[in-house]
Amino acid sequence: MGMRTSAPAIPAPVLSRLARRALEEDLGSGDVTTDLVVPATTTVRATLVARAAGVVCGLDLARTVFLALDPSLEIQLTAGDGDRVEAGAALLTVRGPARPILSAERVALNFVGRLSGIASLTRRYVDAVEGTGARIVDTRKTTPGLRALEKYAVRCGGGHNHRLGLSDGFMLKDNHRAALAAAGRPLPDAVRSARQRLGHGVAVTVEVDGLEQVAEALEAGADSILLDNMTPEQLARAVAQVGGRARTEASGGITLESVRVAAESGVDLISVGALTHSAPALDVALDFDWDA
Amino acid sequence: MGMRTSAPAIPAPVLSRLARRALEEDLGSGDVTTDLVVPATTTVRATLVARAAGVVCGLDLARTVFLALDPSLEIQLTAGDGDRVEAGAALLTVRGPARPILSAERVALNFVGRLSGIASLTRRYVDAVEGTGARIVDTRKTTPGLRALEKYAVRCGGGHNHRLGLSDGFMLKDNHRAALAAAGRPLPDAVRSARQRLGHGVAVTVEVDGLEQVAEALEAGADSILLDNMTPEQLARAVAQVGGRARTEASGGITLESVRVAAESGVDLISVGALTHSAPALDVALDFDWDA
Amino acid sequence: MGMRTSAPAIPAPVLSRLARRALEEDLGSGDVTTDLVVPATTTVRATLVARAAGVVCGLDLARTVFLALDPSLEIQLTAGDGDRVEAGAALLTVRGPARPILSAERVALNFVGRLSGIASLTRRYVDAVEGTGARIVDTRKTTPGLRALEKYAVRCGGGHNHRLGLSDGFMLKDNHRAALAAAGRPLPDAVRSARQRLGHGVAVTVEVDGLEQVAEALEAGADSILLDNMTPEQLARAVAQVGGRARTEASGGITLESVRVAAESGVDLISVGALTHSAPALDVALDFDWDA
Amino acid sequence: MGMRTSAPAIPAPVLSRLARRALEEDLGSGDVTTDLVVPATTTVRATLVARAAGVVCGLDLARTVFLALDPSLEIQLTAGDGDRVEAGAALLTVRGPARPILSAERVALNFVGRLSGIASLTRRYVDAVEGTGARIVDTRKTTPGLRALEKYAVRCGGGHNHRLGLSDGFMLKDNHRAALAAAGRPLPDAVRSARQRLGHGVAVTVEVDGLEQVAEALEAGADSILLDNMTPEQLARAVAQVGGRARTEASGGITLESVRVAAESGVDLISVGALTHSAPALDVALDFDWDA
Amino acid sequence: MGMRTSAPAIPAPVLSRLARRALEEDLGSGDVTTDLVVPATTTVRATLVARAAGVVCGLDLARTVFLALDPSLEIQLTAGDGDRVEAGAALLTVRGPARPILSAERVALNFVGRLSGIASLTRRYVDAVEGTGARIVDTRKTTPGLRALEKYAVRCGGGHNHRLGLSDGFMLKDNHRAALAAAGRPLPDAVRSARQRLGHGVAVTVEVDGLEQVAEALEAGADSILLDNMTPEQLARAVAQVGGRARTEASGGITLESVRVAAESGVDLISVGALTHSAPALDVALDFDWDA
Amino acid sequence: MGMRTSAPAIPAPVLSRLARRALEEDLGSGDVTTDLVVPATTTVRATLVARAAGVVCGLDLARTVFLALDPSLEIQLTAGDGDRVEAGAALLTVRGPARPILSAERVALNFVGRLSGIASLTRRYVDAVEGTGARIVDTRKTTPGLRALEKYAVRCGGGHNHRLGLSDGFMLKDNHRAALAAAGRPLPDAVRSARQRLGHGVAVTVEVDGLEQVAEALEAGADSILLDNMTPEQLARAVAQVGGRARTEASGGITLESVRVAAESGVDLISVGALTHSAPALDVALDFDWDA
Repeated sequence: MGMRTSAPAIPAPVLSRLARRALEEDLGSGDVTTDLVVPATTTVRATLVARAAGVVCGLDLARTVFLALDPSLEIQLTAGDGDRVEAGAALLTVRGPARPILSAERVALNFVGRLSGIASLTRRYVDAVEGTGARIVDTRKTTPGLRALEKYAVRCGGGHNHRLGLSDGFMLKDNHRAALAAAGRPLPDAVRSARQRLGHGVAVTVEVDGLEQVAEALEAGADSILLDNMTPEQLARAVAQVGGRARTEASGGITLESVRVAAESGVDLISVGALTHSAPALDVALDFDWDA
Repeated sequence: MGMRTSAPAIPAPVLSRLARRALEEDLGSGDVTTDLVVPATTTVRATLVARAAGVVCGLDLARTVFLALDPSLEIQLTAGDGDRVEAGAALLTVRGPARPILSAERVALNFVGRLSGIASLTRRYVDAVEGTGARIVDTRKTTPGLRALEKYAVRCGGGHNHRLGLSDGFMLKDNHRAALAAAGRPLPDAVRSARQRLGHGVAVTVEVDGLEQVAEALEAGADSILLDNMTPEQLARAVAQVGGRARTEASGGITLESVRVAAESGVDLISVGALTHSAPALDVALDFDWDA
Repeated sequence: MGMRTSAPAIPAPVLSRLARRALEEDLGSGDVTTDLVVPATTTVRATLVARAAGVVCGLDLARTVFLALDPSLEIQLTAGDGDRVEAGAALLTVRGPARPILSAERVALNFVGRLSGIASLTRRYVDAVEGTGARIVDTRKTTPGLRALEKYAVRCGGGHNHRLGLSDGFMLKDNHRAALAAAGRPLPDAVRSARQRLGHGVAVTVEVDGLEQVAEALEAGADSILLDNMTPEQLARAVAQVGGRARTEASGGITLESVRVAAESGVDLISVGALTHSAPALDVALDFDWDA
Repeated sequence: MGMRTSAPAIPAPVLSRLARRALEEDLGSGDVTTDLVVPATTTVRATLVARAAGVVCGLDLARTVFLALDPSLEIQLTAGDGDRVEAGAALLTVRGPARPILSAERVALNFVGRLSGIASLTRRYVDAVEGTGARIVDTRKTTPGLRALEKYAVRCGGGHNHRLGLSDGFMLKDNHRAALAAAGRPLPDAVRSARQRLGHGVAVTVEVDGLEQVAEALEAGADSILLDNMTPEQLARAVAQVGGRARTEASGGITLESVRVAAESGVDLISVGALTHSAPALDVALDFDWDA
Repeated sequence: MGMRTSAPAIPAPVLSRLARRALEEDLGSGDVTTDLVVPATTTVRATLVARAAGVVCGLDLARTVFLALDPSLEIQLTAGDGDRVEAGAALLTVRGPARPILSAERVALNFVGRLSGIASLTRRYVDAVEGTGARIVDTRKTTPGLRALEKYAVRCGGGHNHRLGLSDGFMLKDNHRAALAAAGRPLPDAVRSARQRLGHGVAVTVEVDGLEQVAEALEAGADSILLDNMTPEQLARAVAQVGGRARTEASGGITLESVRVAAESGVDLISVGALTHSAPALDVALDFDWDA
Repeated sequence: MGMRTSAPAIPAPVLSRLARRALEEDLGSGDVTTDLVVPATTTVRATLVARAAGVVCGLDLARTVFLALDPSLEIQLTAGDGDRVEAGAALLTVRGPARPILSAERVALNFVGRLSGIASLTRRYVDAVEGTGARIVDTRKTTPGLRALEKYAVRCGGGHNHRLGLSDGFMLKDNHRAALAAAGRPLPDAVRSARQRLGHGVAVTVEVDGLEQVAEALEAGADSILLDNMTPEQLARAVAQVGGRARTEASGGITLESVRVAAESGVDLISVGALTHSAPALDVALDFDWDA
């Protein structure tokens, strides 16, 4: 049902562009195996299945991939992006000439495997913090060229998105702090001055490396305070010090093992780079039924 | 030295296109944080370092990324693609205006982290089979849009490349076999007929799911026989049966734990999809020296 | 000085892409006039000047345009984006072979004229509300393909940016309200539910068409309330009713004549579509000195 | 009827490319508002209407925009490009799922508003010179990236097109004249020599800044003489001097107020840069009928 | 029937991209002739015919071209890529509105004429060596941007493809040999070392300029030996010397007159650059039936 | 000297785009041969030479190709586009690291060979009609994607360009005539009506298939009359009938053998499709000096 996916969906022109680019990359000047051994008249029904349990993502994109190679293929989704599925679950059925189905198979699987891997890992983090009130959020540590897709996969796994890129969020990190120090400019002044020129919808985050910097971040008027590489105890003390005057976000080296404890510190957000930079792919496959 | 990298290098126009696309994706209409708090006149020296041991990859691309944002930056590589490095190793130094260095940081790190992750994982597999004569090879399970880069990373890790895509290698897989069966056409005929029409430089691989199919593949004249999902014992028997008349390749579910045993079966190649679809990123960072 | 431009600057790869596309559009297969009558050895110095007073914008882009046609040209900026200038002011000097300067002239002028037109009109609105505390903001009514540039021009004129597109801001408009009504879903519920799934940095705006909807928007927890097509009196009453619990934004049919009165109602933001959809170009020209 | 539009129409692949690019620019990674509050099953009928009188342009492009987001939408044009319409006129109806209609709305309106603005302003100039025999023509002062569309809009407004770019027309302007003088080369020689090498279909225009240059332009064999920045009296004298041996074109600073007098001088063409560089958008909107 | 075409076919997304690019190139901002003189309601049936005998190629691409301009056109292929046809043969029928058919005509003919020219010339070479066992192969001397299409046309003419580009085949040419000599490195060592690092599916070819280099190439373990610019006698001696230990390929200055004699030397492959760099177009035309 | 080339030159951004696209096509993921056998430190000087006499074209593009792969290469042109050269003539010298020179060689040669082939064939036609006053012109029968380059090559050979595409010239061909007949509309009316709506710089050509259609074309006010597939006698009679009231152009099946006689009929233009659709490449090569 409609609630399972954290919208919004990726727009059709984006899906179409990514599908065509991936097909050109894999097919090059054509599929020499399929075209030389499979008769043009052979038809088949194939089912995209999950070989392991997880959260699926990328099914609309898979459909776009198949149709980009042959618009006559009949495709039916039997699951939706964001669904939890068991090993063996059928996700999508495609029926028609066997050649384009065989030629598009790998590209469709590569997309669904990777995105479902991200969604599934995200879901594990989200489940781990259930009930604490903390949100799991992604980072900008995404695959170059696939950010919109990967952030969509995080949403499908129940996570939330951080800024999309450097334009739609202000985040003062340790190196900006050092640059300000080098220029002899107080941080709160710099942040307040920046806010005067930012769009009103742009959130202001200030990263702090130690508890002694929290007061300064509050003075700067941060909407969010990013607590970098802190122990659970430090996180709890920082949350207390902030006292609701800004959102608090834990960041840095948080794993599936440590995320629950971090969440219990009371932070609002926990950002996890591994969601996108190190998620193993979900094992998915295309099963063919030649008697169909 | 020259031997460390498995050539060939990615051509400059490809690096340039990928760097620009990734920068546009991350920067959007500009870096609101850096431009609003860091003075345009501030300069800095920054060092790209490995935070963990591994095999590095993507340094030429990182250079291209920085220069695409500001061609006046001075860049020095202190390691080379394919080098094994320890945690803390300096890989690249960039010096110049702080703004473009800060704005390009994440894109450069995303490329180097991901590619070095692939190279490092590949190296672990290659080391695990050392002395057996087996080669570790990649698959087509790559990130859509980044195949050339990821296959380059596999080479940097000491692995070898399978076909680049569906055009430059003939590989008859289980579904092609099923399609032939459905069409009532004997496999050896189909393969021999295909070879008549393939370019002479295109290798012919036939996948077999059981030992009973090996004879048929040999009869078909395969250059390579892909042994899918077999136990070490089955692999050894298949190698014996082939008797050097074709290359043998183990495939399917091979892990770092099982790869050595598989290699000892005497197969020539072991393909590992995880090299590209599930390698965790290597932890890399950019350290700034504001007094430089 | 540094304060004159509302950062951030447009990234170099974006400037380069836009400059090349515009040059290809205008030059086609080449400049038949210049190449046939101007000797290849003729050199010249040309000055980009404002023919009317205004706020200039697009000078970095003009530089990129000239260099894309001939990287050997020497270019000097004598003004900066965001500067107020008088008629006759010199903005940029280019020196070198006459052919590329003549061939690139129109593209450079088209960019600078259009962007300076937007910056200049924005400045007039900003000046008109000076001292009231209201900010002038843009809309999504931009030229397709040039949004980043045009929003940059608004910043150069002292205005502020609304969301960049449909991804980085939540704005519930009258038609969304109608869709909710058609679906029988209360607005506050829908907005609160949406916020649960939005990224934490995404601002929530609710448009209201009449004072009776303000309470509902507040109940929904809007960060911003957009007051559409209201009289100054209605605006003042709405501001009072909101009482600082959300930002207030006036929108709809506001002109240079009416903007001051609207601002005096106490609203925080005034959005003006005409900044980008109807700004006349600033008159700029390239003056040549053939004795240079 | 068929005469209302000055053909030719923009080819479908161009419309498709421009529509997709504009949608990607506005939608980014998706429409967060619509997807989170409007149920996927809600359908609607929406009507694109003119809020002010004018000449409409861009309706085929609007259709392409809607279909690029969802090919299942049913679209009906109720007016044609080039039609004069009154305020309130219905231009296009779209029916289907509400989500893609809401998400595509702004892009469709931006195109139609801008192009109709150009067509409407052109029509005012064309009407102003009715009966004089003078044609209103555009210039190369168009929006970078949208020249073909904007020149199409000029045709829809009853105007005519000047050359499309620097490749398809020879126009010797004041700076070329100065370059010739600097090189010590007589203008008539240079023009006659150029014509020997031009394609036979390329028209030759020579700009003159004063009456004393007209004879030289005639001697050069110009097909057209561009009379730059002249008073009506100067124009009339120039027309008499040319005596039908070349087309005459008035250019420079001509407004809606002055265009009739300029036309009565007897010139054949009057070029107006403002048609494309400073036309205000026509006010258009999308009205939704949720009970449809 | 299925055997006439040497598969694989060019993938649909590639055809679509090439068709759209070519249409934009030819149509620019529109077809001024057709749109101004042919009524929008006129329909027609047109037949693409061969005006000379030859082997046809590019019919799927022609269909893609017509549909890219108007998806409502009804198209029927009456021949297949790779078919030998006589002068006058009907190849494809298109029926529908006359405007898009007239506007797309030239692009469709340009593709089919050029590709059929290559297929037809290839077929003449293939026929000339019939019975000798030699294969005709292409080179990398293709039109920039059209390599995949042109290599497909070679296959349609009965020829075979050499490597697609520099990535998928190792070919040590005379200049590489000279570079090795300059570096003081023995060729066999270099080749054997290279093979250690090449993908296992990459064929190794060594070019020899004289018989004295054949032994060295064999020692290097070449899969193929390219015999450059040799007389038929030299070719025969080289073939004897190789004795089946590698494929042999004749190359350099082979014409339709000399190819038979070269083939009779016993070489396996004969590469002919002229197939793609100098094939005259096949004369094709579009015949219109206005009474249809 | 400056007169040898028929300007205009192809703009730098176009050359750069074409060079990069061609390099990506040929190099794919890298040059496996060069990178594996040629040391990175080896340098060389190479000379691009003509192996046959002809007119050279594409040298600026060749320079762009080499620099796109390695901007550090030193390049010197020793001939210019449009020069007639003898076999053995040196055209361009490139010096620097051997790897990028070897990797870019084929792309540079493909461009120069093809474009010089067109220029050389054009020159033969131009020489054949010397003294008759007839111009040799090209057609739209160009390679898809390379029209601007190929029309430039025609100019370099002394030919002239017809319209660039369907937008910048009105040409009523036999099928348009048939469409008019089918619609019951007199040709002269249709052409005069079209001219009212065409840009003033767009030339009007009417094709005639027989002498009986010449009067009608003149009545229509054609600027040019295209005499299709006529004998020299028919051409002469048509020229006499036109009597200077329009340009006359011979077209259809004209060869190097027949072009002189056609020219002596007194026609102004002779269009030859073979210039671009069937010109054999000029034999060019890159000679390496390893001792340099």
